[in-house]
Amino acid sequence: MRIVSLAGGIGGARFLRGLLSAAPGSEITVIGNTGDDITLYGLQVCPDLDTVMYTLGGGIDEEQGWGRSEETHVVKEELAAYGVEPQWFGLGDRDVATHIVRTQMLKAGYPLSAVTEALCARWRPGVRLIPMTDDRAETHVVITDERGRRAVHFQEWWVRLRASVPAEQIILVGGDEARPAPGVLQAVADADVVLLPPSNPVVSIGTILRVKGIREALEPKTVVGVSPIVGGAPVRGMADACLRAIGVETTAQAVLELYGPPLVNGWLVAEEDAGVRLDGVRVEARPLIMRDLASARDLARAALDLAAELAHPGAGVREGNAR
Amino acid sequence: MRIVSLAGGIGGARFLRGLLSAAPGSEITVIGNTGDDITLYGLQVCPDLDTVMYTLGGGIDEEQGWGRSEETHVVKEELAAYGVEPQWFGLGDRDVATHIVRTQMLKAGYPLSAVTEALCARWRPGVRLIPMTDDRAETHVVITDERGRRAVHFQEWWVRLRASVPAEQIILVGGDEARPAPGVLQAVADADVVLLPPSNPVVSIGTILRVKGIREALEPKTVVGVSPIVGGAPVRGMADACLRAIGVETTAQAVLELYGPPLVNGWLVAEEDAGVRLDGVRVEARPLIMRDLASARDLARAALDLAAELAHPGAGVREGNAR
Repeated sequence: MRIVSLAGGIGGARFLRGLLSAAPGSEITVIGNTGDDITLYGLQVCPDLDTVMYTLGGGIDEEQGWGRSEETHVVKEELAAYGVEPQWFGLGDRDVATHIVRTQMLKAGYPLSAVTEALCARWRPGVRLIPMTDDRAETHVVITDERGRRAVHFQEWWVRLRASVPAEQIILVGGDEARPAPGVLQAVADADVVLLPPSNPVVSIGTILRVKGIREALEPKTVVGVSPIVGGAPVRGMADACLRAIGVETTAQAVLELYGPPLVNGWLVAEEDAGVRLDGVRVEARPLIMRDLASARDLARAALDLAAELAHPGAGVREGNAR
Repeated sequence: MRIVSLAGGIGGARFLRGLLSAAPGSEITVIGNTGDDITLYGLQVCPDLDTVMYTLGGGIDEEQGWGRSEETHVVKEELAAYGVEPQWFGLGDRDVATHIVRTQMLKAGYPLSAVTEALCARWRPGVRLIPMTDDRAETHVVITDERGRRAVHFQEWWVRLRASVPAEQIILVGGDEARPAPGVLQAVADADVVLLPPSNPVVSIGTILRVKGIREALEPKTVVGVSPIVGGAPVRGMADACLRAIGVETTAQAVLELYGPPLVNGWLVAEEDAGVRLDGVRVEARPLIMRDLASARDLARAALDLAAELAHPGAGVREGNAR
């Protein structure tokens, strides 16, 4: 089976780990969000791509959900000793090496997609990980604070401000010009199933969908999404603060409407959201919380089952082939 | 008193520490060698400037003589895990932060002299440290190995090959075009005394002297040098391999002749080299080995005394003012 999944950071990565376990032998292509990318101290940092790569490659800090396991922070301490800003980004030493390699390859002229492939040669994530675009498309957030109304980089709002200052607007700088990275549209065209994991619907999935041509390529496909909202709150992260910025309620219903048909055909919600309904979308209630690999696998399997059901009504993947 | 000292790495830095102790209240300008500089993984590394800065600023690995104290090597290990070359350069994590800051400032357009000043704002080395040039002037070494006759970066010859392959030629790439960094010639013009510490006479002191105008500026000054050779062998390092490359014997006599008048007016040698003589140069025998701060201070004091004697025959600094 050929599966395409979009992905943000932690939630997406954990879902993908479940998916790898649920669909062994499948060809999985992951389209990763790069809107959170940031240049720090001259190093190109791709938090979401790295979270997917480290999680699937066995290098993640399991407790934290991002960054490297057995991480140290000597470089960060030393940069602070020099008085270098910003000091609010938690750049670990192992992670720094990844960014050094990436930055060097980018400077040598390789596109981010080729760089990501090269980094994955070490991590062997078991999926083909492609950035949504090789172009610069960076999420900025308009806020008003003591310095007035201004746009800050998404990471500054998310990490430094912990999304505590209301986001008045969320802008994808370069979003109108960004083209899908090589392989993205072909992977979607070839896909039997497309999955939207419970990543942030605004700054992760929403950002990927902003890239010219990706939404249009997805619409004719069987697309099953997993609600990132359970009982009116994000499963993790601060998706509510992002949804507020675009005037969308923090409910499984509202996020489904945000995606809507013709994009989404299947929607998995938690038991407490079983009442969610939308014309043209098959909604099913399942346990959404990924506590461990087993629950992530069950969730991925439920998404695949729903997709199979949508593609061939009456025949689940357990009973036969998905197509 | 205004003192100018040229400096390479470890030997120069230790001598300077002695000098700071021997001449408190003096205004010391250090002209640092940048011929050993190398770009690694996109980071600009200045080994000699950093050795001086860390040694005088209290951040040096005392045992090793270079690199940071309490150093870790996580970034280096991770780069190796990605298969990134070269892997023979011992880049520590604390050190990496210095190179990140330097590289960022250089990319922002600051000249190396301004960057060095900014880094020294943290380390407060007690001297004014100026790179010999803001231009690129990089020492390369011509060798013949299994890959044929070729030029390698000085660090590759020095660190990877441990100078075990004969240097057929030592080239300063960009040496003819390099201009002294701002402040270098003025500091020399204003100096009461110029000191040549026991740094490598070819790839440290020799390199600095190659920069257009520096040698000429030094010649009219009172210049006292400390022999880097004791009893036919380098005090430390592999100066013999460098001297061989330029056809100079590894003796205190030969190095003095290499510098020669009108550059050098005073020359300190070890007791076993007391027979060294050269017209126009006052040679004195003193203990040259810097075992600790006290012996480094004694050596620096001996150099200053000789300089005072040369400037005002009959009146040493201990008896009165140097000038």
